[in-house]
Amino acid sequence: MRNVTKDNITEAFMGYMGDDVNPRLREVLGSLVTHLHDFAREVNLTHDEWQLGLEFLEKSGMICDDERHEFVLLSDVIGLSSLVDLLHSRPEGTSSSVLGPFHISGAPPLAVGGDMKDRFDGPLCLAEGIVKDTDGNPIEGATVDIWQTAPNGLYSSQDPGQDTYSFHGLQTTGPDGRYAFTSVKPVEYEVPTDGPIGEFFKACGRHAWRPSHLHFIVKAKGFRSLVTEVFPEDDPYLDQDTVFGVREDLVMRYQNMEAGTFPEGFALSGKVDGPYIRVDFDLTLVRE
Amino acid sequence: MRNVTKDNITEAFMGYMGDDVNPRLREVLGSLVTHLHDFAREVNLTHDEWQLGLEFLEKSGMICDDERHEFVLLSDVIGLSSLVDLLHSRPEGTSSSVLGPFHISGAPPLAVGGDMKDRFDGPLCLAEGIVKDTDGNPIEGATVDIWQTAPNGLYSSQDPGQDTYSFHGLQTTGPDGRYAFTSVKPVEYEVPTDGPIGEFFKACGRHAWRPSHLHFIVKAKGFRSLVTEVFPEDDPYLDQDTVFGVREDLVMRYQNMEAGTFPEGFALSGKVDGPYIRVDFDLTLVRE
Repeated sequence: MRNVTKDNITEAFMGYMGDDVNPRLREVLGSLVTHLHDFAREVNLTHDEWQLGLEFLEKSGMICDDERHEFVLLSDVIGLSSLVDLLHSRPEGTSSSVLGPFHISGAPPLAVGGDMKDRFDGPLCLAEGIVKDTDGNPIEGATVDIWQTAPNGLYSSQDPGQDTYSFHGLQTTGPDGRYAFTSVKPVEYEVPTDGPIGEFFKACGRHAWRPSHLHFIVKAKGFRSLVTEVFPEDDPYLDQDTVFGVREDLVMRYQNMEAGTFPEGFALSGKVDGPYIRVDFDLTLVRE
Repeated sequence: MRNVTKDNITEAFMGYMGDDVNPRLREVLGSLVTHLHDFAREVNLTHDEWQLGLEFLEKSGMICDDERHEFVLLSDVIGLSSLVDLLHSRPEGTSSSVLGPFHISGAPPLAVGGDMKDRFDGPLCLAEGIVKDTDGNPIEGATVDIWQTAPNGLYSSQDPGQDTYSFHGLQTTGPDGRYAFTSVKPVEYEVPTDGPIGEFFKACGRHAWRPSHLHFIVKAKGFRSLVTEVFPEDDPYLDQDTVFGVREDLVMRYQNMEAGTFPEGFALSGKVDGPYIRVDFDLTLVRE
């Protein structure tokens, strides 16, 4: 290809691939590179802009570590993560939503009715629901991986003041398919703006806020795994989630519960005198 | 945007931009994100593929440092760097070509006729030419930033066995517009395959070789800067440069020179008994 031109370079790229390349790789990479070339041609991308873009990627990469995943965040804020969720979300089940960069694996087991609030201040929140199939039958033995922010708006991986697994728990449903736990009410928060994504927000005149939410990953044998989050209906950022994670069926409602009404069957039963909030939200899985 | 769907998410992304965003940023970022979304929709990108892509970017970022720029290399091997060059190359001047990841700034001055071969083994190569304008007039005071591989196929920044500026020099033309230096004959080499790009090559069934070449950045007041490289016509990789850098007008010819013909006016004049190779290549700049 000593005659490479702006018009045949995409073809040249495709021609460099070996004959026995995985067909799906050829399809995905071919589409991606074709779109990147089309983009460069369409805007007549300059050397300075190209360099700025590469520096942005390099800076994003250099602040990544085991707990910081700036490219996930980048994918989130440009809507790519949500788009992938939407492409594979099934309307007959609970919608999926962005995983986000703060999930950590290995969450400790949390008994049904267990508590994640622990020593933290903030409004007590009781959450429960049924993990069920699309016919409404409860699913036994489903695992529900739960995580959320502390009252300061930080996840444990961002916050030296929290233990590794603060506000993380892994619950397994019994025959009734029920998950249930107490925690603090999650708060809205800004995604990290101290790295390149902060510059991106500034340049785009955008805010970094997400509405408050609870994260779930629900898995059960024979069903598609569900990665999702649920949002309260009165959150000020519900219609401007900076990572495009809100779906209509993921909006839930807090009920304000009066003092003296805290139910049995929870780790905190008998220890709660005052008012609390309650949310009921069922999670519907689709068969594989 | 609690009603975000796979069809309106691109619009939602555009809608998040502030009203007073730089119009060029809006154009470039809008086009890029539109193409990325179209790509994801077109191939129905899965979560696993998305994750693989983000991990690839993260791994690429995490091996970057002051001297290693994996994203430049990534841009090179997918043809994006060359495409940007081609978009802005002017047919009336010498074609531009990829900068590559191995340029370092601050090269030491090299007198016209100076030597870069130094203590290194390998065939002696004499290179010279005129830096001129599109009417053929020599340009005085042009700087020619020259760099190349050592005989082992490595640039100084890759090779602890070389000094920082081995095979790097900055020459300034006199009234005759002439640049001239001696060095070793550059060799073909593989771009670094010990990082994520190596996995990319393997997956694509591609080799990592570049034809041998000399790099130049030529700058002169009143002219567009030229980033380019020149390639010998007999190089086995001329038609399969893994970074798509070859252009027809950048192909040059080595002349085999007999013993006893080494000219005056070079740092090595009077010290060369044997045969050597010679290349003449003029560099034409376009006015700004």
